[in-house]
Amino acid sequence: MADQCAQSGKDNRSPIPVIRWEEPPEGPVVVLLDQRRLPAEEAELVCADVPALVDAIRTLAVRGAPLLGIAGAYGVALAAARGVDVGAAAAELAGARPTAVNLAVGVRRALAPYRAALAGGGDRRQAAEAALGAARALHREDAEASARMARHGLALLDDLLPGGAHRVLTHCNTGALVSGGEGTAFAVALEAHRAGRLSRLWVDETRPLLQGARLTAYEAARNGMPYTVLTDNAAGSLFAAGEVDAVLIGADRIAADGSVANKVGSYPLAVLARYHRVPFLVVAPVTTVDATTPDGASIEVEQRAGHEVTEVAVPWTAGAEGGGGIPVTPRGTRAYNPAFDVTPPELVTAIVTEEGVVSPVTTGALAVLCDRSRQVTI
Amino acid sequence: MADQCAQSGKDNRSPIPVIRWEEPPEGPVVVLLDQRRLPAEEAELVCADVPALVDAIRTLAVRGAPLLGIAGAYGVALAAARGVDVGAAAAELAGARPTAVNLAVGVRRALAPYRAALAGGGDRRQAAEAALGAARALHREDAEASARMARHGLALLDDLLPGGAHRVLTHCNTGALVSGGEGTAFAVALEAHRAGRLSRLWVDETRPLLQGARLTAYEAARNGMPYTVLTDNAAGSLFAAGEVDAVLIGADRIAADGSVANKVGSYPLAVLARYHRVPFLVVAPVTTVDATTPDGASIEVEQRAGHEVTEVAVPWTAGAEGGGGIPVTPRGTRAYNPAFDVTPPELVTAIVTEEGVVSPVTTGALAVLCDRSRQVTI
Repeated sequence: MADQCAQSGKDNRSPIPVIRWEEPPEGPVVVLLDQRRLPAEEAELVCADVPALVDAIRTLAVRGAPLLGIAGAYGVALAAARGVDVGAAAAELAGARPTAVNLAVGVRRALAPYRAALAGGGDRRQAAEAALGAARALHREDAEASARMARHGLALLDDLLPGGAHRVLTHCNTGALVSGGEGTAFAVALEAHRAGRLSRLWVDETRPLLQGARLTAYEAARNGMPYTVLTDNAAGSLFAAGEVDAVLIGADRIAADGSVANKVGSYPLAVLARYHRVPFLVVAPVTTVDATTPDGASIEVEQRAGHEVTEVAVPWTAGAEGGGGIPVTPRGTRAYNPAFDVTPPELVTAIVTEEGVVSPVTTGALAVLCDRSRQVTI
Repeated sequence: MADQCAQSGKDNRSPIPVIRWEEPPEGPVVVLLDQRRLPAEEAELVCADVPALVDAIRTLAVRGAPLLGIAGAYGVALAAARGVDVGAAAAELAGARPTAVNLAVGVRRALAPYRAALAGGGDRRQAAEAALGAARALHREDAEASARMARHGLALLDDLLPGGAHRVLTHCNTGALVSGGEGTAFAVALEAHRAGRLSRLWVDETRPLLQGARLTAYEAARNGMPYTVLTDNAAGSLFAAGEVDAVLIGADRIAADGSVANKVGSYPLAVLARYHRVPFLVVAPVTTVDATTPDGASIEVEQRAGHEVTEVAVPWTAGAEGGGGIPVTPRGTRAYNPAFDVTPPELVTAIVTEEGVVSPVTTGALAVLCDRSRQVTI
């Protein structure tokens, strides 16, 4: 299988420049890596005002739940520093992608200290600094959470697979491109790579939007990791050939019972992993656990537009809201296109969070971890 | 889920014009449906000589194991009728796709009676008629085998699922486009539809070449079947939601122990089907059973070119030998791209052939069926 494996020649250890705050003489800006252009090129997008940032969020130049939160917080700081109507800007930012909960949370995170500073008698400059401080704190905390997940995850891998040389299969994109740090599942693989204990990262292409082929492969190449891309349906052969030691995925939401909603295609991997007695590990921050969702059945699965399946498009040339590709199916064909699927807790070997590892996954163990996290935070 | 389901308005019961022999005043021709143009248009390709037919085979205008055999046999008949060097034409035809065993078998099927006629003192016209007769017989036998598989398959479905309204998941393309008749797995679904007992055909898009989205959806639409296309990795959600009553797939090769080599992505469906206690049915002619291959481990899996995975291309505009698409992965990315995978017999509920059904799938039961088939043939 050696000739099927990619070895990136590049080993660029500099962090991927996903998002940063800059203060050139013309005034403060938020600089984003334009993810629509990846992996073809690393282009920066300089947002000097909130409308530019809102446009970047709407068109998926910046994406990924935690990263959207950070972008929203910096957006409030940008509005405050530029002296525009901060309340209106915050509303515009939070509404740029209405279903992205983290975006609204990030916006509030910066808006609250801004308002508190004004209410406490501070001037607009002081309030703007408070907003920026909150955005920077959120960014830093997210990076620290990534680093802790990576350490916990690698310790677990080493524990489960004493041999070293881990061959890890992952799905979708869960790295620096969605995070203030190095991500969730991807960060664990990267930690293993840096420790010299990753012998192969198998990257599911992740249809229909190809986040694995486009984004995870980009991150793997940029970090000099040994990686190979495959169609999602080829994972079965890898398991059968004994080429997968562990599956590492992220999570969009985790119900109170440990059911994991994640990118469609995660659940079939969980079933394959169980059949082949391979550990199936979910890596996500504690905030992903939603105590108000009791179980998997309570998770409503969003259905996305059929054209993502029925048309062929180059992702970075198609509009974010879709269409415009070339039809590959007969006219009138409809598609079943769920955004994610739900893996029941009995198929999850462990949930790795920044606060520690839950294994076996039970309602009680998850609740204890979340309580501990709240105590730490308070 | 109703709004996710396609209902084709068209219910065109005329057979798909996949291949036929015609004798216009200018001389005999083989007329093919140009599969490279599907589903965008139904274009006919008229091959008036062997080089045109060889080109059609090489560029995948005509494809699918049994259909290639029929095309090869008609090709020999065409060479004989046109009065060219039949031996050279046969060699050229058989070599057009060297790994397609059926193609060479089909060529020999027509070449043998041609030579026998000449050796027996017949003239070239009589020999040409013998070749054409053999091609037509092969075509007819294949259509009859399809019809018998369809009947056996539907009887089995009705037996396993007494409720009626079958919801069937299929993978790749196994219908009229690969066959002299209506195919293998697809023919069973079509038989169920005609009997009013198919409530949904779930069509895996079948990455990387999208034979499901392009070709199976075309056949389903043309036959007025209720069908819905999905990404291969979305099948898991369907099983979890209880939306799949049976899986129907074809086979490229079946080992003596019942291990089934078929398009990559079949094995994960078999594992999902087992996990959800859903019947997994393989439909293939007896000739697919290769007694010289003892088991699954003896089947060598062809690795295909990585660009099928790492580039986005519209299938009917890319060259058959590939490349020319737009890269979606970083430069230098390699892909793991097996052509097929192997499902062990313990995951196969039944193998449906034109001679009957084998269930449970055992070496002994398969051998008995193959022996019976040989007795019938002899």
